[in-house]
Amino acid sequence: METKVSSPSKEVIIGDNQPTVLIGERINPTGKKKLAEALKAGDLEIVRKEALAQTQAGADIIDVNVGVFGIDEAALLPKAVQAVMETVDTPLCLDSSNPDALEAALKVYKGKPLVNSVTGEEHSLKRVLPLIEKYGAAVIGLVQDDDGIPKDAEGKVRVAHKIVERAEAAGIPREDLVIDCLAFAVGAEPASGVAVMETIRRIKAELGVNMTMGASNVSFGLPDRELINNAFVVMATAAGATCLIVDVAKVRSIILAADLVLGRDKRARRYIEAYRQRPKQEKQ
Amino acid sequence: METKVSSPSKEVIIGDNQPTVLIGERINPTGKKKLAEALKAGDLEIVRKEALAQTQAGADIIDVNVGVFGIDEAALLPKAVQAVMETVDTPLCLDSSNPDALEAALKVYKGKPLVNSVTGEEHSLKRVLPLIEKYGAAVIGLVQDDDGIPKDAEGKVRVAHKIVERAEAAGIPREDLVIDCLAFAVGAEPASGVAVMETIRRIKAELGVNMTMGASNVSFGLPDRELINNAFVVMATAAGATCLIVDVAKVRSIILAADLVLGRDKRARRYIEAYRQRPKQEKQ
Repeated sequence: METKVSSPSKEVIIGDNQPTVLIGERINPTGKKKLAEALKAGDLEIVRKEALAQTQAGADIIDVNVGVFGIDEAALLPKAVQAVMETVDTPLCLDSSNPDALEAALKVYKGKPLVNSVTGEEHSLKRVLPLIEKYGAAVIGLVQDDDGIPKDAEGKVRVAHKIVERAEAAGIPREDLVIDCLAFAVGAEPASGVAVMETIRRIKAELGVNMTMGASNVSFGLPDRELINNAFVVMATAAGATCLIVDVAKVRSIILAADLVLGRDKRARRYIEAYRQRPKQEKQ
Repeated sequence: METKVSSPSKEVIIGDNQPTVLIGERINPTGKKKLAEALKAGDLEIVRKEALAQTQAGADIIDVNVGVFGIDEAALLPKAVQAVMETVDTPLCLDSSNPDALEAALKVYKGKPLVNSVTGEEHSLKRVLPLIEKYGAAVIGLVQDDDGIPKDAEGKVRVAHKIVERAEAAGIPREDLVIDCLAFAVGAEPASGVAVMETIRRIKAELGVNMTMGASNVSFGLPDRELINNAFVVMATAAGATCLIVDVAKVRSIILAADLVLGRDKRARRYIEAYRQRPKQEKQ
């Protein structure tokens, strides 16, 4: 199954036989004081810089989230999306938990965006799915419902089925859905890594949809988080995740190696190209 | 299933609910000119140094291979094993394709060693299995037979079944067998990574035995091999490999992270301990 996302000049295909698609996560004020303050002041300079830096680091899609407490997201998100579109031609992921902000951003976006996200909660399904259908977007579906985020694979797979059914009933083709299996921090929930891998394998077998994972939650509270995130994304990719929401500069090298091992990089072209471009001191 | 290997003072358990066991691969003259020349001269100083360095780097088992063309392995292997036993108390893996050398090493070894290896070839099954039974050792079974190394999962799984059946018929309990699924270089055989992961999952489901992987072949001919090896061992571990034959210093950090994600490191004890012991400049 292939999920297509585009800007006016670029198309990105998320799919089993494609290289893993990397969504740059850095335009997000959560835990970033400087960015949060700039956004509150309506200053989009950091947003532009991060868009450029992530594209140069190899991001295939850029996530744009301006959710700061007290901010008017429905006014700011389309402005941020405009600023990013003026800076790079990378396709975008419009990221907000506020449907009005999503609609405002959908109105200004040029191309077919990915929307982050709908959940299995009734209020989300009812409000977000019609927007996705109306604007012909693709959407990330988070496996949580009105009872919260299930801890085991069984519960997560059940919510994934629900989202797929409701999306199809709303006129959204299955290939425009990307399921996010939602990992917990392994420091707090030691069994959650195994549960996520099982969830990915089952959703792939039962629904065939594309899947994404955020890497950074997994390592919360532990030292040397990059190492844990790297191990996690490699496993998730091998299990069947086809795109990742990550700090691209920190994850791209190991994912290119993973794609190579998984036969998703013909003649090792991407791997060798990235190796040649890497600064000398990082090579071994 | 648990495979137990021991020295007089240490026991190592290879198994599903255990941390991944790392077998240090560096005492092996293949591609190491200095070591090969020292071994030809009967000089075991490098062997002692490597035994100590790998143990300090966190090796659970040390592989000892002295196979240099023209050398009398049956005379040298037991001497090398003696030298390593005098240097460290880490359990050993006695490594030779020469059954006489294996028997000479088995005679001097104190404890229960791992033997590397038996294959599905008739001459190997007939000569090596009786030695394993006689000395009560554990043994690595390579999935190759008289037709060579199968490229697909189907062929590899078939040879694994054959080795398990023949070992059990020779009086060796299944828990004393560790199957090596034999990876090819992905640069030359792009589909071999996926085939190996499928092989590991099928052997785990069908036979339940412990499995090992050597990491280094996979990256042959490509730059920045450590990155590919790291991605490969993480996937192999997630698929079900329970021990790895590796350059321990280069692989241990990411495998500790993988074990943590896979719920094999209670309260992140091993991960955090290794982090604390790592030199400062390597921490992030």
